[in-house]
Amino acid sequence: MQRLDAAVVGAGAAGIGMALALQKVPGLKFGVLEAGRVGESFRRWPAQARFITPSFHSNPFGLADLNAVNEPSSPAIHTGAEHPSGPQYAEYLSFIARGHELPVATDCKVAAVGAVPGGGFILDTPRGRLQAGFLIWATGEFQFPDLAPFPGAQWCPHYAQVADWTRFQASRYTVIGGYESGVDAAVNLAGLGREVRLLARKSTWDPQGSHDPSLSLSPYSRQRLYQAIDTGRLEIVFGVDVIGLTRDAAGGFRIHAGDGRYWDEKAAPILGTGFLKGGGARQVAELWDWDEDGRVVLSDADESTITPGLFLAGPQVRQEQRIYCFIYKFRQRYALIARRIGLCLDRDTTALETGAGAWGPFGNSECCEGCEC
Amino acid sequence: MQRLDAAVVGAGAAGIGMALALQKVPGLKFGVLEAGRVGESFRRWPAQARFITPSFHSNPFGLADLNAVNEPSSPAIHTGAEHPSGPQYAEYLSFIARGHELPVATDCKVAAVGAVPGGGFILDTPRGRLQAGFLIWATGEFQFPDLAPFPGAQWCPHYAQVADWTRFQASRYTVIGGYESGVDAAVNLAGLGREVRLLARKSTWDPQGSHDPSLSLSPYSRQRLYQAIDTGRLEIVFGVDVIGLTRDAAGGFRIHAGDGRYWDEKAAPILGTGFLKGGGARQVAELWDWDEDGRVVLSDADESTITPGLFLAGPQVRQEQRIYCFIYKFRQRYALIARRIGLCLDRDTTALETGAGAWGPFGNSECCEGCEC
Repeated sequence: MQRLDAAVVGAGAAGIGMALALQKVPGLKFGVLEAGRVGESFRRWPAQARFITPSFHSNPFGLADLNAVNEPSSPAIHTGAEHPSGPQYAEYLSFIARGHELPVATDCKVAAVGAVPGGGFILDTPRGRLQAGFLIWATGEFQFPDLAPFPGAQWCPHYAQVADWTRFQASRYTVIGGYESGVDAAVNLAGLGREVRLLARKSTWDPQGSHDPSLSLSPYSRQRLYQAIDTGRLEIVFGVDVIGLTRDAAGGFRIHAGDGRYWDEKAAPILGTGFLKGGGARQVAELWDWDEDGRVVLSDADESTITPGLFLAGPQVRQEQRIYCFIYKFRQRYALIARRIGLCLDRDTTALETGAGAWGPFGNSECCEGCEC
Repeated sequence: MQRLDAAVVGAGAAGIGMALALQKVPGLKFGVLEAGRVGESFRRWPAQARFITPSFHSNPFGLADLNAVNEPSSPAIHTGAEHPSGPQYAEYLSFIARGHELPVATDCKVAAVGAVPGGGFILDTPRGRLQAGFLIWATGEFQFPDLAPFPGAQWCPHYAQVADWTRFQASRYTVIGGYESGVDAAVNLAGLGREVRLLARKSTWDPQGSHDPSLSLSPYSRQRLYQAIDTGRLEIVFGVDVIGLTRDAAGGFRIHAGDGRYWDEKAAPILGTGFLKGGGARQVAELWDWDEDGRVVLSDADESTITPGLFLAGPQVRQEQRIYCFIYKFRQRYALIARRIGLCLDRDTTALETGAGAWGPFGNSECCEGCEC
């Protein structure tokens, strides 16, 4: 049975970034286990989807690329794009993994995880059983969409299941959800000439409303939304809490809102309703404590409060008011976790400590209250 | 005669940013003299022009907005735009100036500057004569276009003179210059349905070419250029060194290249040929030493090498291989200059020193060789 000091599950932005941090601990034996390819979730993005945070190559002047997983690299340089596509970003991650010779095992889906009493973990993989002293769960959220936000949702394609918006050939669609994925779906469909109705609980882009970036659309999405509105093909209905979907005899759909309103649509509505709370952490649900909102409870070091040695990395990490939902947020936690592991093993963590705060001078302020992604 | 410890000339990004740094020196008496309004140059941008560096509100997580003039503010939040327009950015600067109660005198064009033997400066302004111990020249470059790059250029509108591309009503245009302003002109005209010929010395966007951001178009411009090419209305001719323009009897124009090629055009060609070397520093040309390339020679602290107490702030600052041509670059020099002035006056510069490196962890690396903006 192979033994590792630390195993990382998932080779997306969180997994690759964590591996880079672990690599800074001399002598640490670690590996990354990935069910698919490096950046698999990104490769499965809709063809038209782009990063909503801009990439720019300002590293030489002290500002890391917002979407980079380490300080010196830049997706803007690697992809030539300010808003990389999913496949472009996956290629960037693959490039980083190759360049740093990270020990990534692809096509290596972890089938079972057991926490060993007294410490450590046993992982069953296609390549055999593996023992790891520490386990870092970094399986993201994109592959864990919420497919059942209301009764009848099973008829609806979810944003995360869409390969290419050009395959949506009906003349009109209803999109449910006013945050990033719903707006992206609506914008892409309107851009392709479809008539689109967007049902949203509230405006996330009101120029008179909150300018808190965590409560409102990214500037990139906002701008694209305005352009879509300008086409005249996008109708937005606010204050809609969809509570169910029914089918009529002709095969059409009726969308029901909590206030009694309804809309009829021939094509199945599209779910831009987000992802399961906890995301990939649900794969090992019994190893975490869950709060009443359905979120993973973590220690200050992003460690499970009930399974010592198990850490969470990625967009599901929350610390009080801080939600680490974008790469530029959650990458700040890589060094924290790697340092904790290194110290437990009595290794030299100097390289991580000199890098502490490496993502910027303001540290991790308290001013991101009410973040919602 | 009013006496100041330090005067800043210009209330653009460099002037406002410098004022914020000077404000951190307790007891320093300073003022900002602006010929027009706060952000005047930005207000004069073409209506369609946008920042080529993306704004994003990542400050709370340790990464300053690329286009901000101080650490905590964000043009992305203030304007709601990722790529603000000139007027939007000017409003952001005005907001900062008001919020920090900066001592800015607008409509106050400095008519003459004299260096006092033994130290200090005398400035003639519409509000009277002013004495300043230190002088920071921050008048930018946009209002100092190179209007005579070749004989006949006097017939051509220069990018910096264009108020709105919709006023260009001819069916086709030739744009001269393949860097940011030339490409922006071509992209905007093509977007308005005009046929455009872009004459460029070399490709600044070749995906197979250099990925050095300083040698190539910003990702934002590159993407827009690709879109313009896709319209079929943009023809690009490479390897063109325009050496002159002549007029024919019918009032048309003939553009001559150094290799003997020429192009005839009914409408006057548009100059995307950049700005005068030295930019606004030329307004007080005799107070600087100039190198053989026509650029201002500066000390390590951005001080004139022949006029002690005179500093340069803004996109014309160069230090060996480093060209501080974007806001996120030249803002790194604010604290340096303010600290130098504070120390000369024996003031407490602690607030500046704790802010040293505040723009990022990597400092001011050497890796930006060959920057060209």
